[in-house]
Amino acid sequence: MTQVIDPNHPIGIFDSGVGGLTVLKEIYDYLPNEDIIYLGDTARVPYGPRPLSEVRRYVLEISNFLFSEGAKIIVIACNTGTAAGLLEAREMISLPIIGVIEPGAKAAVNATKKGKIGVIGTAGTVNSQAYDIAIRKIDSSIEVVSVPCPVFVDFVEQGNIESPQLLEAAYEHLAQLIGHEVDTLILGCTHFPLIRNSIAQVMGQDVTIISSAEETAKEVAIVVSEFANKKIGRGMSRFLSTDNTEDFKIKGSLFLGKQIDAVEHISIDELDLSFRNSIIAK
Amino acid sequence: MTQVIDPNHPIGIFDSGVGGLTVLKEIYDYLPNEDIIYLGDTARVPYGPRPLSEVRRYVLEISNFLFSEGAKIIVIACNTGTAAGLLEAREMISLPIIGVIEPGAKAAVNATKKGKIGVIGTAGTVNSQAYDIAIRKIDSSIEVVSVPCPVFVDFVEQGNIESPQLLEAAYEHLAQLIGHEVDTLILGCTHFPLIRNSIAQVMGQDVTIISSAEETAKEVAIVVSEFANKKIGRGMSRFLSTDNTEDFKIKGSLFLGKQIDAVEHISIDELDLSFRNSIIAK
Repeated sequence: MTQVIDPNHPIGIFDSGVGGLTVLKEIYDYLPNEDIIYLGDTARVPYGPRPLSEVRRYVLEISNFLFSEGAKIIVIACNTGTAAGLLEAREMISLPIIGVIEPGAKAAVNATKKGKIGVIGTAGTVNSQAYDIAIRKIDSSIEVVSVPCPVFVDFVEQGNIESPQLLEAAYEHLAQLIGHEVDTLILGCTHFPLIRNSIAQVMGQDVTIISSAEETAKEVAIVVSEFANKKIGRGMSRFLSTDNTEDFKIKGSLFLGKQIDAVEHISIDELDLSFRNSIIAK
Repeated sequence: MTQVIDPNHPIGIFDSGVGGLTVLKEIYDYLPNEDIIYLGDTARVPYGPRPLSEVRRYVLEISNFLFSEGAKIIVIACNTGTAAGLLEAREMISLPIIGVIEPGAKAAVNATKKGKIGVIGTAGTVNSQAYDIAIRKIDSSIEVVSVPCPVFVDFVEQGNIESPQLLEAAYEHLAQLIGHEVDTLILGCTHFPLIRNSIAQVMGQDVTIISSAEETAKEVAIVVSEFANKKIGRGMSRFLSTDNTEDFKIKGSLFLGKQIDAVEHISIDELDLSFRNSIIAK
């Protein structure tokens, strides 16, 4: 599917839930005048425990939907989604499609001096070895130490982003990385930028913390700036959720770091139907 | 003008002459399987002394030509051309268009610790203040010291890329930058990567040298990788010159760092005609 890349069209961005809003928060910093359409597939969150083939289908459905809404570029702001369907989405749609794994991997390779990189993420992300593969593709000599930290997601989901309990959990989970003397740590989960301070405190000031969210936003800024400038920058954001819109509004505002005023609902049946129709139309 | 972005199509790249081949050399490193179409407008080299409006017209003519040849992305591998026509080319064509100034400026801002960046280039590039503007747009607190070094171009054009005379000229021209204690230096001319060693020797090991050519290639690699992968990577390069093809072949091989076997000729009249026709067709 191909589409005119109109600079005045919005940036499309999606995640299984509200976690991808940490990527959007960074995009706001780099591109304050861009219009945004964000879809949180909250009816099917989390993607992590699902079979990759199922997640791939969701990624294609939602990418197709954002394309049909006129997105000029699509951001898969979800580690599992990126691992499952980035390449297939790029095959389907002739727009720039950016995932969260490559930008973080590249920045970490640039940052490490000792050639030892730590990665923390959900069990699904760590088991997929997506960061290991992306890092070794750039420099096969680099040692990657990956540690699943799903408990960090629980802390963030409960709104606990700074507490003695969190620090204790961080010391426990990050000890292995400190033992391996990594000098660079990738926050390989969209929830983790919210607890960056605690993670940095435990790792110490000699370890460079790489936020996949921020690195992804940088790549989005590069690509968007290579097309003609917007005629009028409005910086309007639309938010859509496949589940309860009120939940999205409340929780999403925490991740985004600013108030979300309105959330539209879109059913997973609509996503599915629009995907089927687009395939028939081809 | 809009076009399907087909991953199997070539990367289009151009310069007033052979200098832009230093950018292509870096692109080969990052993207060895990409097909390339390179146009050197050697009939009108150098662009530096010409009025910006005239150079802008050349940039639009050649961008249009590369577009009509099916380029999926266009690289203006020329500092003067970038300053004169990057924005207008982006307005005209709905493809990613990458110039050499922004990537170098961004990398320098990331690299500087003291907030003092040196820029060397031709008189035209320095007078245009294109780097100063691009750097200050990112961080207005940074001090930029720009020094025109057209004599370096003469050395390279004469094939003198390592000699006592070159070192002496480098000491003379770079003294001002050393005096200002810049900790980062942008090679703001496509000729300068060839004399990088001499420049680095004079500046000392505490100064980070940023090659605009290399940074541009990195951005091209980011953008190209965000579209679907090529089905078959052939890594074929076509070279075109608006002037003598034999001269291009001999001199170009030096800049590219490998043998150029064949160069096609295209007249500036053809470029002009194809541009006029494309405007009428709109």
